[in-house]
Amino acid sequence: MPERTAASRLRLSGLCFLLQILNILLFAVFARYSPESGPGHCPPQLDCSRRNQDSSFQQPRFRDVHTQVLLSFGLLVAFLGRYGPGSAAISILIVAFAIQWALLAQGFFNFFLNGKIYVGAQSMVSADFCTAAVLISTGALLGRVNPVQMLLLALLEVIVCTLNEYILLSLMGVSDSGRSLTVHTFGAYFGLMVSRVLYQPHKDERKREERQDMGHQTDVFAVLGTIYLWIFWPSFTSATAAHENAENWAVLNTYFSLVASTVATFVLSPVLYEESTPRMVQIQDATLAGMAAMGMAGEMLVTPFGALIAGFLAGLISLLGFRFFTPVLRSRLKIQDTCGVHNTHGLPGILGALLGMLLTLLATADTFGDRLELVFPLMAQGSRAVTDQAFIQLSALALTLLFAALGGCLTGAVLKTKVLRSPPDAQYPENTVLWEVKLGNC
Amino acid sequence: MPERTAASRLRLSGLCFLLQILNILLFAVFARYSPESGPGHCPPQLDCSRRNQDSSFQQPRFRDVHTQVLLSFGLLVAFLGRYGPGSAAISILIVAFAIQWALLAQGFFNFFLNGKIYVGAQSMVSADFCTAAVLISTGALLGRVNPVQMLLLALLEVIVCTLNEYILLSLMGVSDSGRSLTVHTFGAYFGLMVSRVLYQPHKDERKREERQDMGHQTDVFAVLGTIYLWIFWPSFTSATAAHENAENWAVLNTYFSLVASTVATFVLSPVLYEESTPRMVQIQDATLAGMAAMGMAGEMLVTPFGALIAGFLAGLISLLGFRFFTPVLRSRLKIQDTCGVHNTHGLPGILGALLGMLLTLLATADTFGDRLELVFPLMAQGSRAVTDQAFIQLSALALTLLFAALGGCLTGAVLKTKVLRSPPDAQYPENTVLWEVKLGNC
Amino acid sequence: MPERTAASRLRLSGLCFLLQILNILLFAVFARYSPESGPGHCPPQLDCSRRNQDSSFQQPRFRDVHTQVLLSFGLLVAFLGRYGPGSAAISILIVAFAIQWALLAQGFFNFFLNGKIYVGAQSMVSADFCTAAVLISTGALLGRVNPVQMLLLALLEVIVCTLNEYILLSLMGVSDSGRSLTVHTFGAYFGLMVSRVLYQPHKDERKREERQDMGHQTDVFAVLGTIYLWIFWPSFTSATAAHENAENWAVLNTYFSLVASTVATFVLSPVLYEESTPRMVQIQDATLAGMAAMGMAGEMLVTPFGALIAGFLAGLISLLGFRFFTPVLRSRLKIQDTCGVHNTHGLPGILGALLGMLLTLLATADTFGDRLELVFPLMAQGSRAVTDQAFIQLSALALTLLFAALGGCLTGAVLKTKVLRSPPDAQYPENTVLWEVKLGNC
Repeated sequence: MPERTAASRLRLSGLCFLLQILNILLFAVFARYSPESGPGHCPPQLDCSRRNQDSSFQQPRFRDVHTQVLLSFGLLVAFLGRYGPGSAAISILIVAFAIQWALLAQGFFNFFLNGKIYVGAQSMVSADFCTAAVLISTGALLGRVNPVQMLLLALLEVIVCTLNEYILLSLMGVSDSGRSLTVHTFGAYFGLMVSRVLYQPHKDERKREERQDMGHQTDVFAVLGTIYLWIFWPSFTSATAAHENAENWAVLNTYFSLVASTVATFVLSPVLYEESTPRMVQIQDATLAGMAAMGMAGEMLVTPFGALIAGFLAGLISLLGFRFFTPVLRSRLKIQDTCGVHNTHGLPGILGALLGMLLTLLATADTFGDRLELVFPLMAQGSRAVTDQAFIQLSALALTLLFAALGGCLTGAVLKTKVLRSPPDAQYPENTVLWEVKLGNC
Repeated sequence: MPERTAASRLRLSGLCFLLQILNILLFAVFARYSPESGPGHCPPQLDCSRRNQDSSFQQPRFRDVHTQVLLSFGLLVAFLGRYGPGSAAISILIVAFAIQWALLAQGFFNFFLNGKIYVGAQSMVSADFCTAAVLISTGALLGRVNPVQMLLLALLEVIVCTLNEYILLSLMGVSDSGRSLTVHTFGAYFGLMVSRVLYQPHKDERKREERQDMGHQTDVFAVLGTIYLWIFWPSFTSATAAHENAENWAVLNTYFSLVASTVATFVLSPVLYEESTPRMVQIQDATLAGMAAMGMAGEMLVTPFGALIAGFLAGLISLLGFRFFTPVLRSRLKIQDTCGVHNTHGLPGILGALLGMLLTLLATADTFGDRLELVFPLMAQGSRAVTDQAFIQLSALALTLLFAALGGCLTGAVLKTKVLRSPPDAQYPENTVLWEVKLGNC
Repeated sequence: MPERTAASRLRLSGLCFLLQILNILLFAVFARYSPESGPGHCPPQLDCSRRNQDSSFQQPRFRDVHTQVLLSFGLLVAFLGRYGPGSAAISILIVAFAIQWALLAQGFFNFFLNGKIYVGAQSMVSADFCTAAVLISTGALLGRVNPVQMLLLALLEVIVCTLNEYILLSLMGVSDSGRSLTVHTFGAYFGLMVSRVLYQPHKDERKREERQDMGHQTDVFAVLGTIYLWIFWPSFTSATAAHENAENWAVLNTYFSLVASTVATFVLSPVLYEESTPRMVQIQDATLAGMAAMGMAGEMLVTPFGALIAGFLAGLISLLGFRFFTPVLRSRLKIQDTCGVHNTHGLPGILGALLGMLLTLLATADTFGDRLELVFPLMAQGSRAVTDQAFIQLSALALTLLFAALGGCLTGAVLKTKVLRSPPDAQYPENTVLWEVKLGNC
């Protein structure tokens, strides 16, 4: 069927073309660069929240954030490593599209003034976070959706993600600088919900297990991915932390968390599996889990040993999830999770949110000092009680899960329409090897 | 012929020894570190142009540039990835030699005072740029020259490149902060001209096509190389941008350009080739093209959508060049281009230069504001009209092509002398595998 | 013997668990974050030396050092690359444990006040340096110790390393900002001494040579490792350099040194071996040697050509050591050196220390200017004569060798106890492939 093949090949090409032209047009109409620096650059009409004003528009901070855009972006792409070079091409397309689309979507909510979106380092960081959520969601679906479906997933998820973020951070005043909720938890459960809707019982998942030992390539990527995470993620977590000192603590806490979660892998892995040392992929997963757990709590923890304990727990939870929870998800709940994002992002994200709520209850002017104003500005101004803030942090978790579930349902339903549903093998015969590799590498 | 082998083996060794001793002697006689910081550190006699003075010698900028030396240097070496580990050793030798030699050559033009060259972060950045041009040129020649020839190529190209840069930037006042002209265009056409002079009709180029599918190693390097480019190149492009704000715009514009050129690959590749998704190597080429196009225009574009359009065009041009122009080059013009530098650096560099000329015509104090003084100092001071500056930008393109062609001719003639010309296979029998790998990886 | 296997498998797990709980408890009791910034943040009772005060607690420097923590940490993990993915898991465990343990050990010496250790960016950098020494030592032992032994080695070496560092830097006032002595020389000779004590004559080392040609994987890692070193090591070397200007000179000197040592490899390798171009692993070794030599001298050299000469010598010494010294070490002194750390860290470290002593003799207020106060504060204050400082630098070398030898002996004796001594192959049958790969990759 060469004609059908040519048609399906050109469908992705055409969709890319349409979306890129749309992006260029929207940018031409709406996007402008942020005005020049200076004390008066954030006009009073512009809804730049106190935090934004504080953290990005002042010159010295601006340069820092700008460096962190580069770094966090590197992380996102590095993140691809574990899916193998076969799927890297599609993932880079997703990044290239999602970052433009997220700049537009978030611009309408956060940086809109006089009919223009003002683009700068701060909006690049926000767009990066949103792109990260999309990448996490695709991790649950790799090998079971085709590139056209992935692109549509990015289109829809960016909108829901931005809405969730706007409600949580701007309207409710939730403190979530490292994005435990809006990136990790949201991205994981959104992807899992799409996976549930797209469930195909006849797809044989055992192939995957058989290919786990497919040579050293996977390990090479896992080593490189882990190195990238250790280098770049701590800055990622603290990219939007409120202030110099809060940020430094967030970086140090993230380090302690990942160190402890790495050791936790060595403690639990030999108990659960028959091997004396964990595989590199497991260590990478533990690193991700340790970092997801520090997203919200990173700037709230005031002692290093708290981060050690949280990271240790996150590492244990991630491994236990892989061993006991993933099979249940698949057999009972009919949710396939190709790369185990539930264990590396979902559960640790929830752990981080609960820890953040607990730490909010303990936050007093004594323990936080000047940092209280930066981490919880409303509490420092006296306009919100400690218990109120803690309750809001908790309800933000519930709200995020709700948004992820509803958005994932809706997106899954769209992706399931007949015109898109054709399985990758039938649609892209020449791509079979590509998808096989992908399954093996996750 | 073991004796002849030993002789040819030791020839590279001896040349390295002589060149290194020469470098050490020249450094001992001429090179000194830049004087201590402070307002009076740039003596009036020293020909440090206003831009240099502005951008590097002040303390806060100094630290930034110094970080960017590290990063841009990393990029240069990362750039090697796509040539495969087999050729990486030679490429690192080229980098190690060219950076010393460029420091000396550029020092005589730009940092010479009282018989001494003053070395600092600024001169390291300039030397990095020059080394990048050499690496681009070798990309056109890989597999058809031996290491001794490459070393001599670097020796000669650094001198011509420095001369071209000095005339353009210091004498003519051309604005080319990201080096569309002096690095990308110059490097590509210099290498192509050398390739023309060294043309060997009997070399069977079809081998290369056959080996394109030689396993995953190429893809692994392409993924890693693309990641490096996304992380590090935007700082590279803006390393010498005039000022804080101009630099930030250059970074953002470069991002937008590479994002759009990546999507362009997904649009055009399925139309031109029989595959539904582009290879990673094609994405890396598009990334390079998108960035080369932003070299000159990066700090001149005042709206993001311009960068999106320019990047999209650069991605399309690069792919069309690979499909239609490279075969013509080879069959009609007898120019072999191993790694396709004409498509990734040559054509996008020219596109960037033409775009820069266009933007110069549009530059007014209204659209640029304070940045006019930083990007076009002579225009801001009123000593040069807009049309004059645009004409000078255009003539700089012609001059660069002329220098590249003449320099390439001369260098090719030197490399063609009988004592150097022996083909790699005959000269280094034990290296055959190395060169085969190289051909396959490009 | 499945039971025995299970027991040995769980032994590593149990040891990790105990050590992590111990770390958490010690952190809970002792570790607190550094107090808020501000001029009064370093209480007079706290033994923060003038250098620390000067370099890390002031705000602008603090941010820089903090970035360098990330970078240097990346280097440490990148360093693993050359041991292959098989051993990377264990190496990451060593890093994760050693960094916590070094924070505690160094905290008791350097950051202890009122019963608390104050943790911050400065202590993270110190812990990184100590972890680097441990990684160098394990490089001499890879393939001949099991993970439990490695963990105990880290436990003991961190203590001795911290003691050596405290005596040299704090008590004797030695200038060793890039840690030629306390990291490179100490790590190498500590590991070699342990290797001597654990010597097993029946282990057939010839296997290693045979596997040198085991495909491209080794080369891929060597290329990536070399790139990381070029990017990150110069900042690593200068992470604790006293001051803005001294640091910049340290970075530039380190660059010049590694450039020259790379060329030296191309000069000497064809003379010593039958190949016309050196392998990537040899280039990586030369890079390491060139950097180890700049550890102490990096901030003392006042002219670039000195760094070129020192790097050139370091590259030659490293290669000559591999060719002539390693076989002697193995046959005569019964010291096996799996990864050749004696040539890449030991000898170049000694070279660097001797060069540092020489440069100390030449240090005058004329040549150093304001930098004298920063590099040699005691000499600048007039409380120490030039010859005294040079003698102290020299005796620091002797003391480091003594500490490394005694500590290595003691540690080797502990690791040799029967309960730990079982060879990896017998103890972890399922790991045989892992260790084979490791031997082949070094």
